[in-house]
Amino acid sequence: MKQFDFGIVGLGVMGKNLLLNMADHGFSVAGLDLDQAKAAALEEGAREGQDVKGFITAEKFVSSLKRPRAIMLLVPAGKPVDAAIGSLLPLLEKDDIVVDGGNSYFPDTERRFAELAKKNIHFFGMGISGGEKGARFGPSMMPGGDAQAYERLRPIFEAIAAKVDGEPCVTYLGKGSAGNYVKMVHNGIEYGIMQLIAETYDIMKKGLGYSDDKIQSIFASWNDTELQSFLVEITGLILQKKDDDTGKQLLPLISDQARSKGTGKWTSQNAMDLQAPVPVIDMAVLMRDISKFKEERVAASKALKWAGEENVDATADMLKNALYFGMITTYAQGMVQLRLASEEYGYGLNLEEVAKIWRGGCIIRAACLEDFRKAYKKAPDLANLMLDKEIGEDLVARQKDVREVVKVAVEKGIPAPALMAALSYFDAYRSDRLSTNVIQAQRDFFGAHQFERIDKEGVFHAQWE
Amino acid sequence: MKQFDFGIVGLGVMGKNLLLNMADHGFSVAGLDLDQAKAAALEEGAREGQDVKGFITAEKFVSSLKRPRAIMLLVPAGKPVDAAIGSLLPLLEKDDIVVDGGNSYFPDTERRFAELAKKNIHFFGMGISGGEKGARFGPSMMPGGDAQAYERLRPIFEAIAAKVDGEPCVTYLGKGSAGNYVKMVHNGIEYGIMQLIAETYDIMKKGLGYSDDKIQSIFASWNDTELQSFLVEITGLILQKKDDDTGKQLLPLISDQARSKGTGKWTSQNAMDLQAPVPVIDMAVLMRDISKFKEERVAASKALKWAGEENVDATADMLKNALYFGMITTYAQGMVQLRLASEEYGYGLNLEEVAKIWRGGCIIRAACLEDFRKAYKKAPDLANLMLDKEIGEDLVARQKDVREVVKVAVEKGIPAPALMAALSYFDAYRSDRLSTNVIQAQRDFFGAHQFERIDKEGVFHAQWE
Repeated sequence: MKQFDFGIVGLGVMGKNLLLNMADHGFSVAGLDLDQAKAAALEEGAREGQDVKGFITAEKFVSSLKRPRAIMLLVPAGKPVDAAIGSLLPLLEKDDIVVDGGNSYFPDTERRFAELAKKNIHFFGMGISGGEKGARFGPSMMPGGDAQAYERLRPIFEAIAAKVDGEPCVTYLGKGSAGNYVKMVHNGIEYGIMQLIAETYDIMKKGLGYSDDKIQSIFASWNDTELQSFLVEITGLILQKKDDDTGKQLLPLISDQARSKGTGKWTSQNAMDLQAPVPVIDMAVLMRDISKFKEERVAASKALKWAGEENVDATADMLKNALYFGMITTYAQGMVQLRLASEEYGYGLNLEEVAKIWRGGCIIRAACLEDFRKAYKKAPDLANLMLDKEIGEDLVARQKDVREVVKVAVEKGIPAPALMAALSYFDAYRSDRLSTNVIQAQRDFFGAHQFERIDKEGVFHAQWE
Repeated sequence: MKQFDFGIVGLGVMGKNLLLNMADHGFSVAGLDLDQAKAAALEEGAREGQDVKGFITAEKFVSSLKRPRAIMLLVPAGKPVDAAIGSLLPLLEKDDIVVDGGNSYFPDTERRFAELAKKNIHFFGMGISGGEKGARFGPSMMPGGDAQAYERLRPIFEAIAAKVDGEPCVTYLGKGSAGNYVKMVHNGIEYGIMQLIAETYDIMKKGLGYSDDKIQSIFASWNDTELQSFLVEITGLILQKKDDDTGKQLLPLISDQARSKGTGKWTSQNAMDLQAPVPVIDMAVLMRDISKFKEERVAASKALKWAGEENVDATADMLKNALYFGMITTYAQGMVQLRLASEEYGYGLNLEEVAKIWRGGCIIRAACLEDFRKAYKKAPDLANLMLDKEIGEDLVARQKDVREVVKVAVEKGIPAPALMAALSYFDAYRSDRLSTNVIQAQRDFFGAHQFERIDKEGVFHAQWE
């Protein structure tokens, strides 16, 4: 009987595309879905000569796989993952591997990792980025779990991953939930950059009155500069898209109530637990939340007016520098969060590797990731990307334009919380002395919480009155 | 045998002061502390003729209390609360009341509420604000639990609470963890206002080069204006305080590494769960976190330079308007969080009552709370304080100065994330159309997440390429 190299449970578009990607690279693959149509569609997607089979029962699916088995789950995060594991477990044997390829919340991964370890099954949490197309032709993959067991997966994952300069956008990241954690922060950064792009667009359109064509050509041109990145690229394409019915630009017809699936929120919430400052991500989560208060916003727009100052201007180059500055600080924040999470949870993350596998395939792929990879190669323990000499000098050189663009937003009444957060973060980080001594004094005043001093050792309480 | 009206477990300064406060109002009170010295100190703090007794064993303490017993715990949040409950429980009887007076995390209160309900014991979570002095002479108290059982507590709590216009700063707030939740948001608002004050100070000192004396006299004078509030008042006093040894102003000698005990973080994290936007609180939590990266900040201050623009100015009046605007929006954000939490958790909060009991005794007491009380009296279902006509007009009138002050911070390189977040929040909320449609388009582009349109019903997916 034919034994397949790899199996996937859940033949939605992601599962199907990943299997077809594997088949293109010469692997024999099996899929399981209770929906007969999906199992059939998988086989129809294969080319002649490829070993691709769809199953509708777990027993046949599992027994068709080469041992130790390598099975990936592509089912919705949460209970469906536990249900899928539960249905497979009686059929699995020692050293089989189960990879959760969804956006699972990392504490769930820790729990599953421990539960399956008791049964000698290796569990991996693996973030996958790149969307449908990435899954089909080369995603970025972020696996975490047992290092030795990863060797069973490595040849397949390296074959199907996106490549940058010949290097695959996948690597073993670390123990337990390391993969899900890295993917969570990836998504947090994604939220931040998306919000920065939206603010830049808003400043151009509402603040400076640029035409849609001008905005489109600016974004399109930016993708040939240091801003080169998937999210800038697709923004240029989005701005080009016409509504099929009316022939008008589609974007203004799209509702401004933004949805989210939780990974950005998790990133911000966990960053607060780690005391890792990620303000751009916080503000990106916030703006999706504010966007949902549509009726209130419509009412407020009539009451809370601001005419806007006149004779305000900013060049496309200034906007470019502001967006780039915002992006760099967002990655810097996310990387600090990864560093602190790695310490807290014992992941053993290598940030150079993280930057490396984010260079291609994933939603936050961008030219600047090569700069980050180099920075971490030079200094693996770099506390913050902004402390890299070249990155720091670049930010310093662009800061004047950032300040000008923020002033435009302020003067025109355009909400730009993410860009402002990027600037505040920069200004706070480069402050050897912050005004938070006022907060320490207040806390001691009303709660006798005590304070440290800069001129002597110890803790002190003052008689303030 | 003497039967006491009320008992407190934990005779630290808060517990002792609350009992002495009760004794001043004619109640007979008992305290329990395993530390003999603290039990003795309680009795020594009482005046002649007052019924105040300290116990060192739970049995004697519990049996000394009038039934149904009313016992408050003033022990550190977390395990000590469970331990205290565990030691009391075998001694309690049906309808006895246990009040947790600490800053417990509200899900813990829900759990304890349910556990004790099974044993017919009424559990209350009660936030107490006002510090040591408030406890002694009139705190603001935020109790949540069973409405009927509250009647046993009401006379004592109303007697000892701070009074504003003759009204006590305590009221039954709602079911389960309502009291802890309201106190948590109280503390979140406290974080926000403290950070806004710190930023205002920073802009005066580093941005505009005001002398310490000038800054002190400005803050002192502000407390006689619409900014009148405990936190502005104590900032004036803090600025006046000289170091005992050197005779120099104490404030600059205080470390800028700000500590926190978690309630601000909980507020932000839970706001994200509720999709309640509280950006000023988020940024206040953030700045305490950034403040801890002292060594990195010192290094960054040498590398990431900004000379600052010249000829920048702002008047004290502009700063006053900016701070006031920031404060109002912070309360507005917190109140929205309470409204959404009340819906989500079924608290049945009355926001007019919340504003009323925050007017005195607590750390965030301020003249503006009377305006909020009136706004909710007029419109109990008010979605956001900024939609109140008078409050909204006031914000609109001050916004120009806010924008000018933010520009000063930007031009001088002073981090002002909380003030910026206040302005962004205002500008986002008054936008009938946000640029978050860009985010929806991007999500559909890379993840086929679909979008709604403004011109037709339904959900749509575009072929973007």
